[in-house]
Amino acid sequence: MIPTLEWTDEGVRFLDQTKLPLETTYVLATTYDEVATVIRDMIVRGAPAIGVSAAMGMALGIDRSTATTVEALTPEVEQMAAVLAGTRPTAVNLFWGIARLKDLYYKLATETVGRPEADRLRTIKAGVIAEAKQVYTEDIDTCKTMGRVGQDLLPREGTVLTHCNAGALCAAGYGTALGVIRAAVEAGADIHVLADETRPYLQGARLTAWELLQDNIPTTVLCDNMSGALMRQGRIQAVIVGADRIAANGDVANKIGTYTVAVLAKEHGIPFFVAAPWSTIDVNTATGDGIPIEQRSAREVTHSNGKQMTPDGVGIENPAFDVTPSKYVTAIITERGVLRAPYNESIAAMTNTQTAVSA
Amino acid sequence: MIPTLEWTDEGVRFLDQTKLPLETTYVLATTYDEVATVIRDMIVRGAPAIGVSAAMGMALGIDRSTATTVEALTPEVEQMAAVLAGTRPTAVNLFWGIARLKDLYYKLATETVGRPEADRLRTIKAGVIAEAKQVYTEDIDTCKTMGRVGQDLLPREGTVLTHCNAGALCAAGYGTALGVIRAAVEAGADIHVLADETRPYLQGARLTAWELLQDNIPTTVLCDNMSGALMRQGRIQAVIVGADRIAANGDVANKIGTYTVAVLAKEHGIPFFVAAPWSTIDVNTATGDGIPIEQRSAREVTHSNGKQMTPDGVGIENPAFDVTPSKYVTAIITERGVLRAPYNESIAAMTNTQTAVSA
Repeated sequence: MIPTLEWTDEGVRFLDQTKLPLETTYVLATTYDEVATVIRDMIVRGAPAIGVSAAMGMALGIDRSTATTVEALTPEVEQMAAVLAGTRPTAVNLFWGIARLKDLYYKLATETVGRPEADRLRTIKAGVIAEAKQVYTEDIDTCKTMGRVGQDLLPREGTVLTHCNAGALCAAGYGTALGVIRAAVEAGADIHVLADETRPYLQGARLTAWELLQDNIPTTVLCDNMSGALMRQGRIQAVIVGADRIAANGDVANKIGTYTVAVLAKEHGIPFFVAAPWSTIDVNTATGDGIPIEQRSAREVTHSNGKQMTPDGVGIENPAFDVTPSKYVTAIITERGVLRAPYNESIAAMTNTQTAVSA
Repeated sequence: MIPTLEWTDEGVRFLDQTKLPLETTYVLATTYDEVATVIRDMIVRGAPAIGVSAAMGMALGIDRSTATTVEALTPEVEQMAAVLAGTRPTAVNLFWGIARLKDLYYKLATETVGRPEADRLRTIKAGVIAEAKQVYTEDIDTCKTMGRVGQDLLPREGTVLTHCNAGALCAAGYGTALGVIRAAVEAGADIHVLADETRPYLQGARLTAWELLQDNIPTTVLCDNMSGALMRQGRIQAVIVGADRIAANGDVANKIGTYTVAVLAKEHGIPFFVAAPWSTIDVNTATGDGIPIEQRSAREVTHSNGKQMTPDGVGIENPAFDVTPSKYVTAIITERGVLRAPYNESIAAMTNTQTAVSA
């Protein structure tokens, strides 16, 4: 199991994804502020992993607080939530992870009213740490369920394109899109993965390639501008990607370039799948137009390993995500089941029933 | 005028495009072998510039030969042609430039039969040098004519996307696609250029941005995976690219990623223009399927400024070009006029008439 992040007695330990694949190093965050920095600097990235990190950041902040009363702790908790929420805007899992811990905090604070303050704080701290660990465990379970639910959508033999890293490194483990690929391979499918390198941050070249090779799944890296030509040559049988936020109508925000891959897949009649935990679906956002798209630093584009590649004075575009309208999406794989168009209806139906697929 | 290459008494001087934009340095090739190396290593690149380089390489080789008879020189000329032809396979201009000089060589050798050998060699050497200089001058004139012919296809105000570098640096000067943009700007159009960075060699980020900023044409660099999202937002009004070879049916081989841009343009109803000199049209190749596609070194993808970005053992794709079927091409701009579908007919018609557009 690739240790994307884990709760330790010393703090939250993160695999430093900025250093992969050549260096396997770790960063220990001992305060919620340090967790926020780890998220902002993309030491950890990927929507589910960001959600788990945010939950652990909240638990860490609450656990390390020196407040002696719940009344004093409450504004600190609100501050922790605000700082963590300010790290990255697009992945809805961030807000989900924060909200889950904040909700538990208020629940425990309410339940313990009348007890001695030290006792209340002890109960709250133990509760939020257990909850953060639970979020972590659930995330892995969710990915494995998604894998079982979605694996038979992939070809039994063929080449599958993925964009960015929707793998074990984007989650607590196993992965979303790569989890489905892993499950297909475990079920006997003979799959070769094509990994878009995914400029500017190279999540595909650095992370997807690294983690799939660790699992002995054959992988080829290509530049983002090459998949169209390969599709035209009949060399790609399916596309599967993750998601950072899915609107109520099925529009998918994911790593910049996903939309281009989706258009190419449609042009070539290749199925385009999205794999994401239910927590990525934001029923409060009606369409993709309502999803905020993070703009990141120009330097990610202008510089490469410290060397400037563009002339001074040139403009730079660096949106971190794009929106793929649901009409390009063949199916969305979640731990509750496979969603198909019309997504407004299939999402609403599964939201209401809350039926989890038994594994 | 940006000096992509020039004939000097010391040899052929090339602007080193591998060092741009931060360093403006030159490489002097004093033998035809060195010219071949300059082409192979992409110190000079771009189909028209490769054609001019090949012509100058032939002239240089013939001029520097120590053969004392035409009979001794002829196998050397065949060797020069073979070495230069072996540098890069896709741009047809390479073979065109070699053939043009070789044809002249045999013409002059035939015309001078019966004269003293020293006199013959002097005539041949002077002739091929003059021809190489003529190829250079014609290339600039051709680009300027293409600009005049094509400029009114571009919007009078708006954003134009280009891929790779089809500019002054891809030709003797002025450029093909960027020549059309330059001509539109000279005619008063208010154009903002979006330049795909163009992985893995970054011709857009390094070269297109550099030369357009020198001409004060506002330019923004974006990663290759971003233009789809911008098209969806209505932020791109036209696409214009160059070509490395155009088949008789109008299929266009150009820098890898061009096909993806063409598919995106079609999906969004945005015109997709190709600008190329007539020498890029290969009427002996029926369709794009017959165009050889160069595969370049994996290292261009795996390494960035000397640092390895991918894990050991991963596969790598690195085709340098792709083929865009003519159905995606709104028009092909040449110095003889604007070609429209059906391209088989419009290309055949202009091939036969040889009518140059008067400027």
